Amino acid sequence: MALLVDIHTHVYLPRYVSLLRARHTVPRIFTSVTRDGKQDDRLLILDHEPSGGRPVGAQYWDRDEKINFMNRHGINVSVVSSANPWLDFLSAPEAKTLASELNEDLEQYCSEGPSLSPTLQRLYGFGLLPLVPGISTSALVDSIEQISKLLHLRGIILGSRGVGKGLDDEALDPVWAALEKTGLVAFIHPHYGVDEKAWGEKSNGHVLPLALGFPFETTIATTRLILAGVLDRFPSLRLLLAHSGGALPQLSSRLASCIEHDPVVASRLQHDARWYLGKLYFDAVAYGPEELGFVSDVISRSARFESKDSVGVVDRGIGSKRMLFGTDHPFFPPLQPTDKWKSVVENLQAIDSVSGWGTEDKQGVRGDNAISLFQLGQK
Amino acid sequence: MALLVDIHTHVYLPRYVSLLRARHTVPRIFTSVTRDGKQDDRLLILDHEPSGGRPVGAQYWDRDEKINFMNRHGINVSVVSSANPWLDFLSAPEAKTLASELNEDLEQYCSEGPSLSPTLQRLYGFGLLPLVPGISTSALVDSIEQISKLLHLRGIILGSRGVGKGLDDEALDPVWAALEKTGLVAFIHPHYGVDEKAWGEKSNGHVLPLALGFPFETTIATTRLILAGVLDRFPSLRLLLAHSGGALPQLSSRLASCIEHDPVVASRLQHDARWYLGKLYFDAVAYGPEELGFVSDVISRSARFESKDSVGVVDRGIGSKRMLFGTDHPFFPPLQPTDKWKSVVENLQAIDSVSGWGTEDKQGVRGDNAISLFQLGQK
Repeated sequence: MALLVDIHTHVYLPRYVSLLRARHTVPRIFTSVTRDGKQDDRLLILDHEPSGGRPVGAQYWDRDEKINFMNRHGINVSVVSSANPWLDFLSAPEAKTLASELNEDLEQYCSEGPSLSPTLQRLYGFGLLPLVPGISTSALVDSIEQISKLLHLRGIILGSRGVGKGLDDEALDPVWAALEKTGLVAFIHPHYGVDEKAWGEKSNGHVLPLALGFPFETTIATTRLILAGVLDRFPSLRLLLAHSGGALPQLSSRLASCIEHDPVVASRLQHDARWYLGKLYFDAVAYGPEELGFVSDVISRSARFESKDSVGVVDRGIGSKRMLFGTDHPFFPPLQPTDKWKSVVENLQAIDSVSGWGTEDKQGVRGDNAISLFQLGQK
Repeated sequence: MALLVDIHTHVYLPRYVSLLRARHTVPRIFTSVTRDGKQDDRLLILDHEPSGGRPVGAQYWDRDEKINFMNRHGINVSVVSSANPWLDFLSAPEAKTLASELNEDLEQYCSEGPSLSPTLQRLYGFGLLPLVPGISTSALVDSIEQISKLLHLRGIILGSRGVGKGLDDEALDPVWAALEKTGLVAFIHPHYGVDEKAWGEKSNGHVLPLALGFPFETTIATTRLILAGVLDRFPSLRLLLAHSGGALPQLSSRLASCIEHDPVVASRLQHDARWYLGKLYFDAVAYGPEELGFVSDVISRSARFESKDSVGVVDRGIGSKRMLFGTDHPFFPPLQPTDKWKSVVENLQAIDSVSGWGTEDKQGVRGDNAISLFQLGQK
């Protein structure tokens, strides 16, 4: 059966929403009363958000709304993750407690949700680690242990800060080791973008931080991780990059060239920078078929860098095996009431329109790759 | 005759080098004496440069060295531009005087250099505008007027700061108007990258600011320019983007989606964001054939956004018409003495290896597109 699986879909679990409602600085949810007496809930997740934050409602926390959204778009299974900024703003003890509670909450959210068959639920999840400054290594490893025992959690979501110094911090080596051992997928997702001074003085709403800042952050975080040799030291790590890897695919040959011209950095790495891109997984949240086709080219060509001699034409189909459909729900909602969300339709059309992908490749990206990567249908 | 034309190649003119030698803060050139008594000239163009700056020599300023480099790589014609940071660090009166002098110097550099035929020189140039805070509009327009009268200058190079507030500043409208009128090409080139805090604490040499920061800056500057409606107001503007447009091609469908979800921004623009990419020119300095093929796809698909109804398969060849070979000389020199620079060989091989480009498309990118865009061979 050909399933449609959404691996980039977020939830603010009720326990997390309560916390956000109690806060007076970002991230927070606040309620104002409109002129006609209605309650207006708004979420502020970044400093200086234009338009006073985004309107939020049940689609952000209610499982029925998630299932309703899935049904309307023909999505059979979702692998749900907490949305940014996760636990980044908490102290180590708070983060530790809340991570544990939210992981249990998410397991319950999945396990008590609807199922497609005795072995296949409609909801699976990415757990959370208490990745904040001052956290102990054992707390992080314990958290991975906890998640690996929760039957419906098949990975973790992580931001770019690590425990404060980024994903190139050796302090994370025990985390990578534990992820490798448990086989959990790590979903690298942005939150901070780049310094907002880059956006200039003109008002462009959320466009620049969302369209450019988010992908830049993922690109920087992943590049630093590669440069620190994490993929050399932990070759079985399964990293999934949000938003099709941001700008990393398009800058990867330039990155390889810059490394090659810096003997100190080059000597640290076992492979050409482009080789590592073939070891990563990419969501298919890029909104255009040319982008998806290109990302699959970049994954495919990794094989050319296995040895110095290997050359040859790239087979897009190979790269498609590491790409997975996503929606970014509940973000990018339609502006007008509509049956299907444009953001979702565009990502599905993009998959369907990639030149050079066969029917099997497309079905892989739509769902089969996720079933295999997350071992869905297996206890 | 099939010519190889390099449109991304830099010079620090002797007058500019003298200025850099006289300075004590970046940008500057300083000389130390090595243990064995040799002079060691180093260029610092960014704050906090690792490795104490890059070694510089005659290849940075000497025309014979440029011709020598061209000869070794089979480059028939170069369209030379001053390297970053141009005049950004000067006061308005200083910038105005120096721009005028450097434009005359560059004209002389080209006109007194070798020629290929009575109508075709081997060297052409991009002039400089005194784009600094406090400069008058008339000084900028006068500068464009000057450049348009210098026979071998066929464009201008400009950084991302404009007169201090970026390229989305309405203060630049007279500049865009004058560029449109004169037909000069504007080459948008990075210098500042993004805030260095993004690179973390680990030492990675120049890799992160060069491989990621530079392309991010070009991406941001061009996106802001599009969002400000510059291409709607000045539709005949001929903008050439450094480093194949940085990350703009890969993020362009995401950009379009983010704009579409922001009615205020969307209502300001006459077209889908992806339409504008088909109106730009891109150098072919991306070091890989998949990147170049993708950039040409993104240019080609612009036609799909002419009207809401247009769909269809993309013809890579169309996009190739707006792409132009470049070397980034004298940057990315080889680490070991060698006949040909790896950075140049890679960019040539990339052009030659793009799947879906025919012989004519490749020759277009190698030189024919430059001959047409810069009207080389015409007085």
